[in-house]
Amino acid sequence: MALRAVAFVCSLKPSPASSSSELIARQLLDELSAYDVGGEIVRVVDHDVRPGVENDMGNGDAWPRLRQKILDADIFILSTPTWVGHMSSVAQRVLERLDAALSDTDDADRPILFDKVALAAVVGNEDGAHKIVADLFQALNDTGFTIPAQGCTYWNGEAMQGGDYNDLDDTPDAVKSANSMAVRNAAHLAQLLRSNAYPAK
Amino acid sequence: MALRAVAFVCSLKPSPASSSSELIARQLLDELSAYDVGGEIVRVVDHDVRPGVENDMGNGDAWPRLRQKILDADIFILSTPTWVGHMSSVAQRVLERLDAALSDTDDADRPILFDKVALAAVVGNEDGAHKIVADLFQALNDTGFTIPAQGCTYWNGEAMQGGDYNDLDDTPDAVKSANSMAVRNAAHLAQLLRSNAYPAK
Amino acid sequence: MALRAVAFVCSLKPSPASSSSELIARQLLDELSAYDVGGEIVRVVDHDVRPGVENDMGNGDAWPRLRQKILDADIFILSTPTWVGHMSSVAQRVLERLDAALSDTDDADRPILFDKVALAAVVGNEDGAHKIVADLFQALNDTGFTIPAQGCTYWNGEAMQGGDYNDLDDTPDAVKSANSMAVRNAAHLAQLLRSNAYPAK
Amino acid sequence: MALRAVAFVCSLKPSPASSSSELIARQLLDELSAYDVGGEIVRVVDHDVRPGVENDMGNGDAWPRLRQKILDADIFILSTPTWVGHMSSVAQRVLERLDAALSDTDDADRPILFDKVALAAVVGNEDGAHKIVADLFQALNDTGFTIPAQGCTYWNGEAMQGGDYNDLDDTPDAVKSANSMAVRNAAHLAQLLRSNAYPAK
Repeated sequence: MALRAVAFVCSLKPSPASSSSELIARQLLDELSAYDVGGEIVRVVDHDVRPGVENDMGNGDAWPRLRQKILDADIFILSTPTWVGHMSSVAQRVLERLDAALSDTDDADRPILFDKVALAAVVGNEDGAHKIVADLFQALNDTGFTIPAQGCTYWNGEAMQGGDYNDLDDTPDAVKSANSMAVRNAAHLAQLLRSNAYPAK
Repeated sequence: MALRAVAFVCSLKPSPASSSSELIARQLLDELSAYDVGGEIVRVVDHDVRPGVENDMGNGDAWPRLRQKILDADIFILSTPTWVGHMSSVAQRVLERLDAALSDTDDADRPILFDKVALAAVVGNEDGAHKIVADLFQALNDTGFTIPAQGCTYWNGEAMQGGDYNDLDDTPDAVKSANSMAVRNAAHLAQLLRSNAYPAK
Repeated sequence: MALRAVAFVCSLKPSPASSSSELIARQLLDELSAYDVGGEIVRVVDHDVRPGVENDMGNGDAWPRLRQKILDADIFILSTPTWVGHMSSVAQRVLERLDAALSDTDDADRPILFDKVALAAVVGNEDGAHKIVADLFQALNDTGFTIPAQGCTYWNGEAMQGGDYNDLDDTPDAVKSANSMAVRNAAHLAQLLRSNAYPAK
Repeated sequence: MALRAVAFVCSLKPSPASSSSELIARQLLDELSAYDVGGEIVRVVDHDVRPGVENDMGNGDAWPRLRQKILDADIFILSTPTWVGHMSSVAQRVLERLDAALSDTDDADRPILFDKVALAAVVGNEDGAHKIVADLFQALNDTGFTIPAQGCTYWNGEAMQGGDYNDLDDTPDAVKSANSMAVRNAAHLAQLLRSNAYPAK
């Protein structure tokens, strides 16, 4: 069975507004398709994801449906813009909601997010990528995801100059190269873990 | 004229649920009253603060009213719980909305948040206070706030043991002492800046 | 051939002073031996690791010998105390020196640290673990290491109370459990990557 | 009596090697002189600052002399390059050594670093400024420094493109403007605190 990816785009802007974090997520999914990995983008802010740390906060909370998409995937991509040097509030909301997964276990008493691989993607007109990748890796790994070698990609403009990733005439070669590396390693590792699950206690 | 404080409590839980971040904010406001500083608490999640980075995102966005409370205050307290080691998504939302203030200037062409003092308060059953204080200071200072000496207070429980700040039988002496220090210095500095505004360019 | 681990202990205190970050590193190595993984501890501050970002800074620089130990290992453990909420200067020095490895490639033109797994261990009387784990994962992953699911362990005391990990009468059960999980997953993943290297471009 | 500033430059390279973090520190000191603030640069790595958290680690430890320069100043500038997205190991060493000052008090039983103002300056060919400023503000404020409004300046190049601050033909206008703002506010606040010390308990 082919591998599946899902990319959660954490822009502050709802669809159909143009989004740099969606652009880089789409580039990753496009590259993943070359490894026969199917994928889907979720613009998180389009959905009513409630504040809280339960799996279902009720009252039409959209998280249960979004959560299922992560459970169905082998590769989870979290893509976020940079605001005041931090990940967006939408991205942090996703991490908070994933936190409930910490106590959910499968039949072998393992966290339900084991054997899945996570990638981080960060864009912004100002700096913040390294720090946001750090915060994402720590939170996602804690929840159960495995981080493949060089498992991120990013773009930040020169300090104080403005300009967005989706305003660039062309994706810089160095970013293309980071995209390819992250995707290649994620596909490899997800396949390995699909065939060789982490052992139970 | 007496100084004014406002505390934005960034719990994920709406009122009237009990909240550790509200408790520590209330303790700070109580201490401020001894310095003749009046104050008010805003439980941010009770209000519909929209995602975005404009002063008013429209459609009933609650931010303009909340923003006015900050503009009317001399001391701004941001109090947040710790989720996955980070500030809450509600706190990050506040920072994103404050970001628009960067380009708003007063009659002397100075950022409108100048001459105001900010304090950070962090609670959580797991660690994260130092990092969250760091992220808060950097963002709030960038927007124009001044940070008084030892301008934070916090409580995190022992690693992996659970337990919340508002479950403690009594506030630990060390936290009381940090509260007092932060408040004393904030009141002093806010008074100084009230009488001696930052110069225009 | 059996797997090998090396733990870099980044205490500020030279041997033979007692060290909490050495204690937790030793606990991880002990657990790894149950998986037939041999290991070694390096107290980094005992060695003259020069500032700089070249593989060899000359003049008796100890890094080339230390670096070889990492190259010879399948599992790299970085263990650090918490100072002012951050990893120690000794830990950051290790990351700076590893940075040179970014441009070193093997015969297949892959970064030389690929197919190796990294674990983070953090201790401190004050909070900081989640942030330090974040900074370590981001830096180590960037250099080429893979992060296994729940690939860290840590202990921080209650806020402002003092007390060190190696002063505890017994290791808390939750920490023991985190140690076991990190080790079990690291051994599994290192074995997988030993047999199934990341593909070349 | 005129105000005094001291800038600790935390480059990994000893003098007389060219240093971007020294360049931006010198720019700040030059601007401060217009406010009649005298200043001095210390290239920290030129001195044998030992690992540890005591005021004097003995054996020729250079910290006591460096520490005195901070005690003699009204404005402390910490300038650091960006390595793997973090402040340099030299900068973190300075923070560790300042940590001992936490328990040193003056005749009024106040922390000895009260009434002093701190600025942060960050440069790097890759992103990291916002995060490093965050980590610096939190640590320096905890030790007793006050952070003036918009109390930092920085430059990071575009992601993955290389190039250093001291390679630029000219300092970008936006950075010049940030330099001026930080300096103007620091001079104002240091003068205020010189005349109006934080109250004792």
